[in-house]
Amino acid sequence: MPGMPTVNLSLGARSYTVHVENNSLDSVGYLTGRLRLSGKAAVISDSNVYPLYGDKVIQSLTDAGYSTSLHVFEAGEASKNLSTVEQIVNEMVAEGHDRSSFVVALGGGVVGDMAGFIASIYYRGIPFIQIPTTVMAQVDSSVGGKTAVDIAGGKNLIGAFHQPALVVADPTTLLSLPPRVLREGMAEMVKHAAIRKPHMLHPLHRLADEIDLGFTLNTIERLPSIIAENIAIKARIVEEDERETRGVRAYLNLGHTLGHGIEASVPYGELLHGEVVSLGLRGALWLSRKYCGLSERAEREVLDTLAALELPLTLPEGVEVERALKFTASDKKFSGGSIRFVLLAAPGEPVLSEEVTPEDLAAAMQLLTTPVTR
Amino acid sequence: MPGMPTVNLSLGARSYTVHVENNSLDSVGYLTGRLRLSGKAAVISDSNVYPLYGDKVIQSLTDAGYSTSLHVFEAGEASKNLSTVEQIVNEMVAEGHDRSSFVVALGGGVVGDMAGFIASIYYRGIPFIQIPTTVMAQVDSSVGGKTAVDIAGGKNLIGAFHQPALVVADPTTLLSLPPRVLREGMAEMVKHAAIRKPHMLHPLHRLADEIDLGFTLNTIERLPSIIAENIAIKARIVEEDERETRGVRAYLNLGHTLGHGIEASVPYGELLHGEVVSLGLRGALWLSRKYCGLSERAEREVLDTLAALELPLTLPEGVEVERALKFTASDKKFSGGSIRFVLLAAPGEPVLSEEVTPEDLAAAMQLLTTPVTR
Repeated sequence: MPGMPTVNLSLGARSYTVHVENNSLDSVGYLTGRLRLSGKAAVISDSNVYPLYGDKVIQSLTDAGYSTSLHVFEAGEASKNLSTVEQIVNEMVAEGHDRSSFVVALGGGVVGDMAGFIASIYYRGIPFIQIPTTVMAQVDSSVGGKTAVDIAGGKNLIGAFHQPALVVADPTTLLSLPPRVLREGMAEMVKHAAIRKPHMLHPLHRLADEIDLGFTLNTIERLPSIIAENIAIKARIVEEDERETRGVRAYLNLGHTLGHGIEASVPYGELLHGEVVSLGLRGALWLSRKYCGLSERAEREVLDTLAALELPLTLPEGVEVERALKFTASDKKFSGGSIRFVLLAAPGEPVLSEEVTPEDLAAAMQLLTTPVTR
Repeated sequence: MPGMPTVNLSLGARSYTVHVENNSLDSVGYLTGRLRLSGKAAVISDSNVYPLYGDKVIQSLTDAGYSTSLHVFEAGEASKNLSTVEQIVNEMVAEGHDRSSFVVALGGGVVGDMAGFIASIYYRGIPFIQIPTTVMAQVDSSVGGKTAVDIAGGKNLIGAFHQPALVVADPTTLLSLPPRVLREGMAEMVKHAAIRKPHMLHPLHRLADEIDLGFTLNTIERLPSIIAENIAIKARIVEEDERETRGVRAYLNLGHTLGHGIEASVPYGELLHGEVVSLGLRGALWLSRKYCGLSERAEREVLDTLAALELPLTLPEGVEVERALKFTASDKKFSGGSIRFVLLAAPGEPVLSEEVTPEDLAAAMQLLTTPVTR
């Protein structure tokens, strides 16, 4: 497929390719066949995504000679737990899957996280393929090998690093997303641009206008390259620091410390992940101006892009500053008492700071109660 | 500690040492302190082992400056499931464990399997230390990084390869084991000797006499070196084939194919794992004479050692040949329809055979209904 954008992740024996192409769901079987996967496929999806794309993916795998089994769970974060894992694993055993089988994760972040985790523990680990169908999943969660499920004690507290064997991203799947879900995913694209490729803010800004009206054909044709370029930002970071032990992968948490605090302080689902990242980005950039001299102009460029995408920059009604701060302080990024906070010294130049104090966090959270000034 | 037997596993970044020393439970804190572990310790044990050695291990960790939390579950394979995993993980979250924490597995195979699995998934993987307190756990399950729990669909069907950061084996813990548990663990020692160091059969034979009477002081002093030498057999194999992808690690399954079938055909716990391995070894050696010329003398030397240890060589009442065969054929070692069976060409020389037919398995299982002839 000449000209199809691909992103390669060089991770030694765990290397893989992200294929980004419009209408590539039809090619899943072909692309899988080029890997050394000979066993059966366990397709894992949710009740929202399976009706849209399930038949197409299964047909493609069948045409390529694979036998498949299907495992669909109720859509939503509430399903991302060990009970669902156990249920699907038992289904897979009953379907005769063994260590030669592989998992196909078809859906958004919840599907990818859970199906990836299942693949990481089934017979102590079998390969899996990611087919992400949301912006968030395509540019962020499907790439990098982080898998997880939730427990009573918190979100994503158990999981594994398990890299996929292949990622197939079809940008046309994004066209059926509700506008709010499309927008929230773009918050991570803005974050990627801010930490590594600030020149990408402009095309993201341009996309904003089309979200409500519908993308033009011209835009749809450009989507694969925009998405692939954004994925490549994360891919290079994951290559440098696969297991988040060297500090580099932590740059991807820009905006996430305050964001997680806000997210955890409200009932789950009230604010989407990308929405709290947008809020967290505003707070982090403000602190970046204080601690590492980020220019007002650079800050404004990011905030303008988020605003154009209609992502929130002030705390919505119902979010309490004190409560959000309490959840921020218990965020798992804080270890041993000191706070490692990602700041932006300049566009494309993130830094890990230990200078940020609890008082700074409180001031940044307070800032989010006030409108952005011009 | 000069003279203390240690076994080193060279696995790149995952290398570690097995310390084998009498009364070494007191040294757990000291040995842990030599690793780069700075966080809190989550000690996981069961209701049998904790009352015997828990205080000693926790005291040792506390003396070395570690803060600890304690997680004790009801002893027995029935606890080795995802419910117990989730319960302990939630306890760990409540105790404030984060990605800097580590797990200490204190007990036999069930504790090691489950605590190791918890360590492999907590915050996507934290270090763990094995403190095995049975023969089986010391010479076999604590070394090599296989962790697992059971699901409805079968035993050990989910898990992870997660190498410990340290193994501390105290042979004096074996002195309090019931004789039957001591004997069954020695079946794996006999298996190790058969596949790599046949000269070790003689000292194992000598130990047999002392099991009921109690070990002499002289024997107790020799236990660490006997156990360390046996562990080293498995260690070298794991180094060659960490993830069981090259065939070498499969040698450790000598006797296990028929053994697993017998084990699964009776209510769990009726026969101990080492007991079915003993039966499986007899069947495998008989097939080895047929297919790869194992001498009668070599076969007899292994069987004599097993007999001296009072391990079963004929099917106990209640085991049905047909039923055991049915479970043998569905054993997960059989993939893609062909049977990979471990045979012994000569003492110390295992081979992987695909020649063994279902009829052979039936004949070998039938053999186990007849007494060993001389």
